[in-house]
Amino acid sequence: MITIAEARRIIAAGEARANEIGVPVNIAVLDAGAHLKAFSRMDGAVLGSIDLAMGKARTAVLFQTTSEAVWEYCKPGAPAHALELSNGGLAPFAGGISLFARDGTVIGAVGVSGGAVPQDLEIAQAAAAAAARRCADT
Amino acid sequence: MITIAEARRIIAAGEARANEIGVPVNIAVLDAGAHLKAFSRMDGAVLGSIDLAMGKARTAVLFQTTSEAVWEYCKPGAPAHALELSNGGLAPFAGGISLFARDGTVIGAVGVSGGAVPQDLEIAQAAAAAAARRCADT
Amino acid sequence: MITIAEARRIIAAGEARANEIGVPVNIAVLDAGAHLKAFSRMDGAVLGSIDLAMGKARTAVLFQTTSEAVWEYCKPGAPAHALELSNGGLAPFAGGISLFARDGTVIGAVGVSGGAVPQDLEIAQAAAAAAARRCADT
Amino acid sequence: MITIAEARRIIAAGEARANEIGVPVNIAVLDAGAHLKAFSRMDGAVLGSIDLAMGKARTAVLFQTTSEAVWEYCKPGAPAHALELSNGGLAPFAGGISLFARDGTVIGAVGVSGGAVPQDLEIAQAAAAAAARRCADT
Repeated sequence: MITIAEARRIIAAGEARANEIGVPVNIAVLDAGAHLKAFSRMDGAVLGSIDLAMGKARTAVLFQTTSEAVWEYCKPGAPAHALELSNGGLAPFAGGISLFARDGTVIGAVGVSGGAVPQDLEIAQAAAAAAARRCADT
Repeated sequence: MITIAEARRIIAAGEARANEIGVPVNIAVLDAGAHLKAFSRMDGAVLGSIDLAMGKARTAVLFQTTSEAVWEYCKPGAPAHALELSNGGLAPFAGGISLFARDGTVIGAVGVSGGAVPQDLEIAQAAAAAAARRCADT
Repeated sequence: MITIAEARRIIAAGEARANEIGVPVNIAVLDAGAHLKAFSRMDGAVLGSIDLAMGKARTAVLFQTTSEAVWEYCKPGAPAHALELSNGGLAPFAGGISLFARDGTVIGAVGVSGGAVPQDLEIAQAAAAAAARRCADT
Repeated sequence: MITIAEARRIIAAGEARANEIGVPVNIAVLDAGAHLKAFSRMDGAVLGSIDLAMGKARTAVLFQTTSEAVWEYCKPGAPAHALELSNGGLAPFAGGISLFARDGTVIGAVGVSGGAVPQDLEIAQAAAAAAARRCADT
């Protein structure tokens, strides 16, 4: 279970990294049921990335992996044709990361969008690390 | 224009009141174009209220009023029959409040859901007052 | 068939009346197939009325009548229960008026939203009269 | 903020170019929040392009760029796979152009559809130039 306190720590860690690299982003934290727990749109982040931040997190948590890992199943040549059309539309590119408790159960996901894809990934990793550190310390 | 800093102040003020009365709620802050700026789901708030918190705020800001004021136009006997079906579905009951700058322009809205309707209203008013104080001080 | 020139005359006539009574509104003109021909949002008109202006015009033209006449079929006690849920959601209150050629064929509809319902109706009637005059003169 | 007067100048400039090259098109002008401000369907423009004109403008303004620039992020080989499925479906091809104030803030977008893609682009550029001239003169 993800608490609002840790959702805020995750967002704060992501925004700290976003500020370091100078990219305003949207950050969404979902719970294990893919329901929104917390969301923040940094000043200057583009509107089109609101849906993408949520979509990447949703893509990740629905399959208990990262958003870009889902692409491996549906990319040209892979067997799950049009998988990206399922579940109301997926966002199978980097920036969505599932979060796990120490016992391996999924507790939610974070999704980041607003910069270039590698920037979103870097920010999402910084955000997810805040959750991981908490898990490791608990 | 609403900043992420003031969106967080609005949410914090709402959550402080929610804690006082012991009701976990969802709080959404939208900008003037009805796009999500910040969202928080307090621990224990019901899932069905995520959409309602956003819906009340959207109902308020789309008509530059409160969510319950929209009901005055579409309630039985009022002339705007089925108005609540417009705009993808409205949430015309208390808990959504438009926020205005001192010059009267709408800057967004806050929406609260998770308690009884009068509780949601009380929390939304506390949240909106945080925005009003900021406007008054600026 | 409705031309863009007459759609603009219809909108101009509606906006002239809206300016006289000091109410900024949204005005939509649809063709006989319920497809948008022209739209105008006056400065200051609320965002929630964009969908309503289109919805009233759509409600009118789909049934070749006025938007409020549709309510007579679905209001409590009338036999067409939940008719307002059909066609993706209707807007069965005043402000939508079908437009007819002199031979009686429907050529489209105008929809107005942004003021009180009687104001929207008055503006829609002024707008529709511009079409009617054209028809009478042709 | 985009006014109805400038939205009409933008559409008029686009239609003037469309008439020069003999292609009837749909032209949509959105505000910065992606809400419709004005729309015009020239006589003879195909129905399927109503949604496309709005969709291109929406695609542009949501990402504060041009509609075709969005394709650079999601085309085969680019990292944002299936980005076009986000935000309710994008229209990532030429004909949508974001409009900016002189201080760089986005004020909306224009979208054109009805001709071949290069024609739509040419008309959209003529339309957007009318906004740019206004900005430059103010």
